[in-house]
Amino acid sequence: MDFRSDNVHGAHPKVLQALVEANAGPASSYGDDPWSERLRDKLQQVFEHELWVLPVTTGSAANSLALAAHVQPWQAVYCHHESHINVDECGGPEFFTGGAKLIDLPGEGAKIAPETVERAIVGEGFVHAVQPGAISITQATEMGRVYQPAEIAALSAVAKRHKMILHMDGARFANALVSLGCTAAEMTWKAGVDALSFGATKNGCLMAEAIILFDGAKADELAYRRKRAGQLLSKMRLASAQLVAYLEGDLWLANARHANAMARRLAEGLSRIGLPPLLPVEANELFVRLPKVAAKALQEAGYRFYDWAALGPDAWRLVTAFNTEERAVDGFLAAVRQAKAA
Amino acid sequence: MDFRSDNVHGAHPKVLQALVEANAGPASSYGDDPWSERLRDKLQQVFEHELWVLPVTTGSAANSLALAAHVQPWQAVYCHHESHINVDECGGPEFFTGGAKLIDLPGEGAKIAPETVERAIVGEGFVHAVQPGAISITQATEMGRVYQPAEIAALSAVAKRHKMILHMDGARFANALVSLGCTAAEMTWKAGVDALSFGATKNGCLMAEAIILFDGAKADELAYRRKRAGQLLSKMRLASAQLVAYLEGDLWLANARHANAMARRLAEGLSRIGLPPLLPVEANELFVRLPKVAAKALQEAGYRFYDWAALGPDAWRLVTAFNTEERAVDGFLAAVRQAKAA
Amino acid sequence: MDFRSDNVHGAHPKVLQALVEANAGPASSYGDDPWSERLRDKLQQVFEHELWVLPVTTGSAANSLALAAHVQPWQAVYCHHESHINVDECGGPEFFTGGAKLIDLPGEGAKIAPETVERAIVGEGFVHAVQPGAISITQATEMGRVYQPAEIAALSAVAKRHKMILHMDGARFANALVSLGCTAAEMTWKAGVDALSFGATKNGCLMAEAIILFDGAKADELAYRRKRAGQLLSKMRLASAQLVAYLEGDLWLANARHANAMARRLAEGLSRIGLPPLLPVEANELFVRLPKVAAKALQEAGYRFYDWAALGPDAWRLVTAFNTEERAVDGFLAAVRQAKAA
Amino acid sequence: MDFRSDNVHGAHPKVLQALVEANAGPASSYGDDPWSERLRDKLQQVFEHELWVLPVTTGSAANSLALAAHVQPWQAVYCHHESHINVDECGGPEFFTGGAKLIDLPGEGAKIAPETVERAIVGEGFVHAVQPGAISITQATEMGRVYQPAEIAALSAVAKRHKMILHMDGARFANALVSLGCTAAEMTWKAGVDALSFGATKNGCLMAEAIILFDGAKADELAYRRKRAGQLLSKMRLASAQLVAYLEGDLWLANARHANAMARRLAEGLSRIGLPPLLPVEANELFVRLPKVAAKALQEAGYRFYDWAALGPDAWRLVTAFNTEERAVDGFLAAVRQAKAA
Repeated sequence: MDFRSDNVHGAHPKVLQALVEANAGPASSYGDDPWSERLRDKLQQVFEHELWVLPVTTGSAANSLALAAHVQPWQAVYCHHESHINVDECGGPEFFTGGAKLIDLPGEGAKIAPETVERAIVGEGFVHAVQPGAISITQATEMGRVYQPAEIAALSAVAKRHKMILHMDGARFANALVSLGCTAAEMTWKAGVDALSFGATKNGCLMAEAIILFDGAKADELAYRRKRAGQLLSKMRLASAQLVAYLEGDLWLANARHANAMARRLAEGLSRIGLPPLLPVEANELFVRLPKVAAKALQEAGYRFYDWAALGPDAWRLVTAFNTEERAVDGFLAAVRQAKAA
Repeated sequence: MDFRSDNVHGAHPKVLQALVEANAGPASSYGDDPWSERLRDKLQQVFEHELWVLPVTTGSAANSLALAAHVQPWQAVYCHHESHINVDECGGPEFFTGGAKLIDLPGEGAKIAPETVERAIVGEGFVHAVQPGAISITQATEMGRVYQPAEIAALSAVAKRHKMILHMDGARFANALVSLGCTAAEMTWKAGVDALSFGATKNGCLMAEAIILFDGAKADELAYRRKRAGQLLSKMRLASAQLVAYLEGDLWLANARHANAMARRLAEGLSRIGLPPLLPVEANELFVRLPKVAAKALQEAGYRFYDWAALGPDAWRLVTAFNTEERAVDGFLAAVRQAKAA
Repeated sequence: MDFRSDNVHGAHPKVLQALVEANAGPASSYGDDPWSERLRDKLQQVFEHELWVLPVTTGSAANSLALAAHVQPWQAVYCHHESHINVDECGGPEFFTGGAKLIDLPGEGAKIAPETVERAIVGEGFVHAVQPGAISITQATEMGRVYQPAEIAALSAVAKRHKMILHMDGARFANALVSLGCTAAEMTWKAGVDALSFGATKNGCLMAEAIILFDGAKADELAYRRKRAGQLLSKMRLASAQLVAYLEGDLWLANARHANAMARRLAEGLSRIGLPPLLPVEANELFVRLPKVAAKALQEAGYRFYDWAALGPDAWRLVTAFNTEERAVDGFLAAVRQAKAA
Repeated sequence: MDFRSDNVHGAHPKVLQALVEANAGPASSYGDDPWSERLRDKLQQVFEHELWVLPVTTGSAANSLALAAHVQPWQAVYCHHESHINVDECGGPEFFTGGAKLIDLPGEGAKIAPETVERAIVGEGFVHAVQPGAISITQATEMGRVYQPAEIAALSAVAKRHKMILHMDGARFANALVSLGCTAAEMTWKAGVDALSFGATKNGCLMAEAIILFDGAKADELAYRRKRAGQLLSKMRLASAQLVAYLEGDLWLANARHANAMARRLAEGLSRIGLPPLLPVEANELFVRLPKVAAKALQEAGYRFYDWAALGPDAWRLVTAFNTEERAVDGFLAAVRQAKAA
């Protein structure tokens, strides 16, 4: 009955179990351990590409570090106005990059379009202006929308044209991936993604995210940056083990499929009640307009969810998770029907 | 048989159990949860003082954030040359503070003396020179030594005289505390400590350290700094729960007592073999000089430990932990006797 | 015939003469000299208030330092999208503040309105969001507009309500002042300005701007920040002497009055030809729409001015200065008439 | 009679004259002017090498920017403990580099030896340690000593071995050069210097220093860094013109020769009185031990000079300049003789 965010839930039992198992016995610290090695192997299989992986404990750290390794202090990061890096990290990217500038752009559903980025690039080569550094997109977006691989590729083309990298904030990477039904490779490096914040916490881990690079040129730099940012865990195996369990047996995909299905079930139910979602539901987030009085009644009945001012008055966000139960969704729908009638 | 560091070991079973229990059901994210509240209560009892606590995932993050909240970019941090902040954090304090300067000082056993700090302060009020910002000490030190409360108070007096704060890197806080046999209050705020990095990972947690302030003036600032550093965990309860379990029933003290006892047992055994420790063993670290050939033989026999160049050639460090077994110590001693004889 | 900017011109002869005179004989370095003292006295008379003054060599340095002394790294600076700090300093404010965020706002004539700032403040006290730090306005604006004292006071009220400071980028301070016909006090501290970048280079100096604070609380901090930014001149008297000469006998006001008068003469002349300025001409900048072919013809005839894309296609900027001659204006007007006819 | 520093004196008349001449008429701003072009040509002749030159207004800015363009935030700069960058720039290099670490080294006469640097490099490739970034030397040193080209080359070899750059703080470049009697090329790029802070203010300019790179790889980056540091002058020609005049007709060498000769005259005179300099006098700085009472008497007689605690009690520094008069030296010597006798 808690639809506030996918991060209000604990970890998946299998992830927890793996953590307990990895905890036994000594192991080299700082990532020089079998779990960390297995994690890289596993991810290389998943992504069908050589890659460099650096686990960290939060998505904010993943984003900021990934950007800092590629964006110079006098450069700009083009991103959506509603993007997590722009409005939810208290200036983390600015801190880690040494003062790079986030150029926030409009776009429906928190997606940015290639033309929008292109138009925003001014003063290239002009010493008075910040220079193109990176495009950063969120997949799935903060509004629950998903970029098609072709859309990503089009953004990558803009990035390449201006010698930028393309960064993907994949806090809900799995939710987007199963929504698209494509491969992880198609959604990332094949579409031109250079650096990925691979999210796992929201979809079944405790505190484990991974920065993934598809090119090793910046891997060493990133390792030093991670260390000095206080993100190199001494007992790293306990993060790596979470991520390995997350990937094993495609747990991550199953989790995301379930979360997305629950969001669709919610969307369909709400539509039937005359409350169609404000935006297409492509992942595990849903936005709906509901009179304040009805929302309050639901909250008093124990349902929890946030208002979402960015979508105007009386807009609310509902987020489903890997462990959202069908009956919780159905119970909520019944309660909405009742609240609406009241 | 692994004496490399106290961080090669997993978490204590009770901490793990608490983590599993805290994982059940939803909870508000980002620290607005009962475990985080309980943690503050618990620590206030332990320290007998109102305090502000901000859990993070590494000791490096705790140190850097605690310093950044109190030291301006044009100020200096006076610390020992061998201190973790100076040589083991890849410039983390410089990064977090925006370029403050670490003034590294000599001192036996990685301890710094008030006079040494006093002498190092030059150019106070002179616009060309960095200004006094903080004194940072490690308790227990990187050489296994412990500051007496009176020694801490003397350093605090220097700090106050120059309008600095006194920071304590307590990566091995518990080991020092049980070694002294004083109260946590006596070792900290009663002796003038303003900001504490309260270590727990090395002594039984998975990845949980806490920044503790005894004055709330900088607590808000620190919260923003922690967030933008990517150190505000969404599933914060899973860190807080570790720390609560660590404190409950004085597990932390029992763990530290055991680790220290094992270090003493090692020290006594080695002394009997004619290998007295290079420095007094006051906590859970021990340094010994051993011919390289003997050390290699031990390592080939499966014993693991690091060489320690800072103490000269053929110096080695042995670290015991909460779970070091007596028979491992005794087995090691027997093996040393054999290696030495060979 | 050069209307590109007021900074294409050298210094006023009187400023130059003062520099030559100040150059004679030895003097204490780093600002401990009679010229620097006289400068403070002079400014205190001009502003009718106790103040702290720190000369620097560029307006960018003045802006960035003034902001850095008041805005924390996790805070925001509310400014116009077209403001110099946002688009013309290559991320200087982000660099000096340690990564504060510039929130760029719309507004006619590069002016921002109190309501616009108020609306842009979101997430106050919310740890995920950057916090209010400063409002920064440019007087005269980058579009040649001038804030009325009452407008400044209204912005100051917003600033105070959110515990921000109000910063004024006065690169063209004198031009705005004589345009308003009010006192320097009325345009600054009486209207709530806390920190001022007092521009002089564009209006007759060689390389001399001054940061002015009307409250001494941050003066020491600013002195350290200026030093470590490499902006504390050893031969400071040579900057102070420029500024003293600039103020003496109200040279600065006479210079600005002339520049403004030349801009008005241009505006009136262009209006008569059917080319009314795109924005009210309140200081020494004028924007006009002119077919590219006519503009090229003028440029080939030796007239120099920049195109101004922010105002759409075929927009051009003309800037007058303290030494713009009437006949140059009249010659230009004649040439425009001819070019337009062609 | 002012021996405090070479920066207590104004500019050389020829430099001033050139400034006045350059001031006439309009010129493109920000360095796109004939004086800036001429400056580069002139320096390329002087250094017999293609180079990139970026004028700034202080030596601190030159040093910090030159280092920032080459040293990553997680790297170290090896320098002498007494170096200007370490003790006289209020943490400027740390600020500009984003928190790089200065490793301060001992060495006679403020010179560092290759072995000293080599020994100080620890933890290369170890993620916990800051990594080698640059060696920075001052020529002439803060103690008036001069590096021989062979000594510079030996330091460059260490730099190259560890993939560092070699930076030279040439605040007193000319004084060192005429002391050695070699070419500018021999003292810089031929000996392996990569980046040079070419000082001019102390030796006859008003406020003009130049960053010189002998390789263009970082020139663009440096231009952006200079701009965002507020060091790109709008009326750049007025800095470039100073530097051109400084170089023309070898004024800089004549000035330095005179300053050095005056220092030698002082040294010889003092030696005759039984006050031999504490360090060899190789440039224009001289250190002498003199009872406090004698020093006070001299100061009361109008002679000005600083005490120099780094050389122990009763140590004083005397600095000569391009305009120090022989009779001033002789008068001072007579006064010392008298003060000593008293």
